[in-house]
Amino acid sequence: MKFEHALAMFRQGTMTPREYLEEFIAAVQEKEGRIKAFACLDIEQARLHADASTDRYRRQAPLSGIDGMPIGIKDIIDTASLPTCMGSDIYRDWRPRADAEAVDALRSGGAVILGKTRTTEFAIGRATITTNPHDAERTPGGSSSGTAAGVASGMICAGLGTQTQGSIIRPASYCGVVGYKPTWGVLPLHGVHPVSHSHDHLGVIAQSLDVAWALAHCIMKYRPTKENAPLIPLPSLGAEGHPLPRIAVLKTAGYKELSEGELGAFDERMNRWRQSGVQVSGVDEHAELAAFCGELDGVPSLSTEMVASDMRWPYSQYCKNFPAETGEKIHGLVKQGLDISAERYLSLIEHREKLLARLEALSTRYDAFVLPAASGIAPLGLENTGSRTLSVYGSFLGIPAVSLPLITVGHMPLGVQLLGRRSKDHELMCHAKRLAELN
Amino acid sequence: MKFEHALAMFRQGTMTPREYLEEFIAAVQEKEGRIKAFACLDIEQARLHADASTDRYRRQAPLSGIDGMPIGIKDIIDTASLPTCMGSDIYRDWRPRADAEAVDALRSGGAVILGKTRTTEFAIGRATITTNPHDAERTPGGSSSGTAAGVASGMICAGLGTQTQGSIIRPASYCGVVGYKPTWGVLPLHGVHPVSHSHDHLGVIAQSLDVAWALAHCIMKYRPTKENAPLIPLPSLGAEGHPLPRIAVLKTAGYKELSEGELGAFDERMNRWRQSGVQVSGVDEHAELAAFCGELDGVPSLSTEMVASDMRWPYSQYCKNFPAETGEKIHGLVKQGLDISAERYLSLIEHREKLLARLEALSTRYDAFVLPAASGIAPLGLENTGSRTLSVYGSFLGIPAVSLPLITVGHMPLGVQLLGRRSKDHELMCHAKRLAELN
Repeated sequence: MKFEHALAMFRQGTMTPREYLEEFIAAVQEKEGRIKAFACLDIEQARLHADASTDRYRRQAPLSGIDGMPIGIKDIIDTASLPTCMGSDIYRDWRPRADAEAVDALRSGGAVILGKTRTTEFAIGRATITTNPHDAERTPGGSSSGTAAGVASGMICAGLGTQTQGSIIRPASYCGVVGYKPTWGVLPLHGVHPVSHSHDHLGVIAQSLDVAWALAHCIMKYRPTKENAPLIPLPSLGAEGHPLPRIAVLKTAGYKELSEGELGAFDERMNRWRQSGVQVSGVDEHAELAAFCGELDGVPSLSTEMVASDMRWPYSQYCKNFPAETGEKIHGLVKQGLDISAERYLSLIEHREKLLARLEALSTRYDAFVLPAASGIAPLGLENTGSRTLSVYGSFLGIPAVSLPLITVGHMPLGVQLLGRRSKDHELMCHAKRLAELN
Repeated sequence: MKFEHALAMFRQGTMTPREYLEEFIAAVQEKEGRIKAFACLDIEQARLHADASTDRYRRQAPLSGIDGMPIGIKDIIDTASLPTCMGSDIYRDWRPRADAEAVDALRSGGAVILGKTRTTEFAIGRATITTNPHDAERTPGGSSSGTAAGVASGMICAGLGTQTQGSIIRPASYCGVVGYKPTWGVLPLHGVHPVSHSHDHLGVIAQSLDVAWALAHCIMKYRPTKENAPLIPLPSLGAEGHPLPRIAVLKTAGYKELSEGELGAFDERMNRWRQSGVQVSGVDEHAELAAFCGELDGVPSLSTEMVASDMRWPYSQYCKNFPAETGEKIHGLVKQGLDISAERYLSLIEHREKLLARLEALSTRYDAFVLPAASGIAPLGLENTGSRTLSVYGSFLGIPAVSLPLITVGHMPLGVQLLGRRSKDHELMCHAKRLAELN
C-alpha cells in the first residue's frame, strides 16, 4: 500500500503504523532471499519504532508527515544502531558513534528504519549482489542498488541513496521507481562516506513523488542551508492546477547508447505529452539548445576527471593501506586522479560554472529539461551496474534531477528524467507530478 | 631552531631532519610532563619519517617546502596510525580508517607527525589538562590547547588546529605564537570532527608566519577549492618590498573585557606602527567604520546561536546516548540550538552576508583590520579557556585572521589580530609579515 493511503488511515485510526510495517516485513520475508536488498535488517527495532509511532497517532501527535514510514538507509550512510560497512571489507563490522545527519532527521520525523540497504563498494566500485526485482538476471543499477530494489519490491516505502554520477537516477530507472537527486547542497552529507566532494549528493528513492519530497523536506527542515532556504516553506507538492510545463529535450551523443526500441519508447512518451498539450521542444527548433546539448557531450569525461581527483582523499590511503580489499575500479580512478593538476581541476570548476550560466539562460524559455534516465533498460548480469552517461549531466551541474517510471520496454522499466534549476527543486517536482499524471 | 634556518641546513647538508627532530624530542622529554600538550606521542614513527626525509634531502628530492618539519595534529582530526579521541570519552581508543584530508596532505609533503595534541572536549566543551608554557597556573587557551602550547614550548614547529569561534586565534595569543585561521573553505575539513558546519575552520598554529603559510599552502594544493583558487599560485610570503598596509582598528564593545594595562599595551603597539609610517585609522575618524564596529557587537551572541543550532548534529545524539560522557556546556548548547527555528537560522545567514558586504565596502579604504587577538592575557586556572569575544568576528564572517605575538603584558603574551578579506589570505599574511618586521 502506498504511504499516502496508509497515512490517511493512520490519521483516521483505521490502520496503525505497526500493521503497515508488518506488510513490509512480510514482503521482506517473501522476497529478500531473491532480491538481497539489505546489508542488514533490524526488524525488532523497526517494530518498536512502529509501535511508538502507533502510539503517537493514537495521541494525535505524529512527529511529521513521514511518521510511521518504513524506510531503508544506504549502507554508506552512518547509523549508530546498525553496522555501516560501505560495501567494503575495509569497514567490516564498522560502528559509527552517531547516525548521519539525514538519518537523525528522519528518525526525528518518526520514520521507521527497517535496515541498511546494499551499496556498491563505496558507492563507486565493485557491484553488490542485489538483483533487479523485475528480472533477477539483471542489475538493479548502482550504486544505491539496495534502496532501489527494496522500494521496487515493496520491502520499504522509500530510502536514502546517494549520487555522485548516476547512483540514484540510474537504479530508480532500472527498478521502475521514483528517484530524486536534489540540488547540490540541499541535503546534508554529514556522516555519509564521501566519494567526491564536488559531486556527492544525498537523495531519495521512493514509491512516489510525494513520498520522495516528504522525506527530503524532513531532512531540509532539520538542516537549513543557503541552497535549501527557498524550499523549506514548501512541505508538499500539490500539483493540482499546476500549469503544464514547457520542456526541452536534451538530446546528446549519449542517446546512441540506447537501442532503437528504447529511443522509440522515449519518443512515444514525448509525443503523448505533446498530444496532452505539453510544449516539448527539440534541439532542431532552437540553436542555443542544440549548442548546449553539444556542450553536454563532454561532461561525462570531465565529471570523471573531477571525481577521480576528489577521490585522492581518502581512497589513495585505502589503495595503499588496504590494497587487496580495494577494487580495481577504485585503484584506477585514484591513479587517474593523481595526475590531475590543481590548475586543471580549477579549470573544470570554472567550466562547470559557465555551463550552469548557459542553463540558466535557457531556463527563461523552458521550465524543465527532459531526457531518458538511463542508457536503456537494466543490462543483463549483476557485475555491470550500467552506464552513467545520461545521469551525469545533472550530477556535474548540481541541478535537481528526478526519474519517473513512465516507460516500459518489454518487461523492463525505463525512467524519464527531468532536470531543473538550482534550488528550484520544488518547482521541478511539481512539474514532474503534473507530467506523471498525464496519460 | 626555527624551521626556516633548519630548512636551509637540510638543503646544504649541514643538518638532517632526523637531527632536527631530536631537538624537539629532547624538548618533549624535558617539558611535556609539565605542559601536557600531547594526547598521544609516536616518537618511533616520527623518527622513521624523519629518516625518510633525511634520505630525500640527501637525494636532493624533498617532497615540498615542509619536508622534515615536526608537527602536531589536534586530536579532533582523524589519524589512522594514532588514536583520535576528540577530547571525549565517547571516542576513547577510537581509530579511524583513514587520516583526515589535511593530515594526508601534510604527510604527502613530508611533514613529520610527532603526535596528537590535546583538545578541549570536541573543541567546544570541557577544558583539557594542558598548561600555558609561560605560566603553568594559566590556561593555554582553547580549544587547540595542545597545538598552541606545543609550539610555544618548542616541542613542535607547528600544528593543525581548528577554530569554530576562537580556538586558534585565542590560544595562539595566550601562548605567544602565530595563529592563522584561513578564509572559510580554504582548508578542507574532511576527517575533522564537526562542531558547527557554518563556523568550523581548519587552521595552523606555528613558530612563524612563513611556517604557518607553508603548512596551509601544502594543504590547499592538495585540495583546490573555489575559495583557495587565488592562493594556490602563491607558495611563499615574501613581504620584502611589500608596501605598508593601511589598517583600521576594529574597536568594539568587546574591548571592555581587557584591563587598562592590556588596552594601553595594544594602543602603544598601534602608536609604534603609526610612528613607523603605518596608516592606522580609528573609529573616531570614520563614521562607517564606527557603524560597522557597532554591528560587530551583536556578533558573539548571533554566532553562538548559529553554532548551537548546527550542534544539533551530532551532539543531540551524544547528549541522548552518552549523557554522562558529555559535558554540561555541550548539553546547554544543544538545548539552546533546538529552540532555534529554520527561519531564524536562515535570517542569521542573511545577516552575515550583509555584514560581509559592508566589510568589503570598507576594504576599498583599508588593507586590513586590527584588534587584540583575545580579551587580554591568559586567565588564571585551567578550567576557563578564556573569552571568545574578539576572535569570533572573523569566525562568524569566515574571513582570514592572524594572531601575531607582538605584545607582552607582565610576563604574559597578548596577540595582535589582523583580519582581511575573503580569499585574500596571502595578502593578509604579507601585511602581517610586513607589520611584524617593524619595530
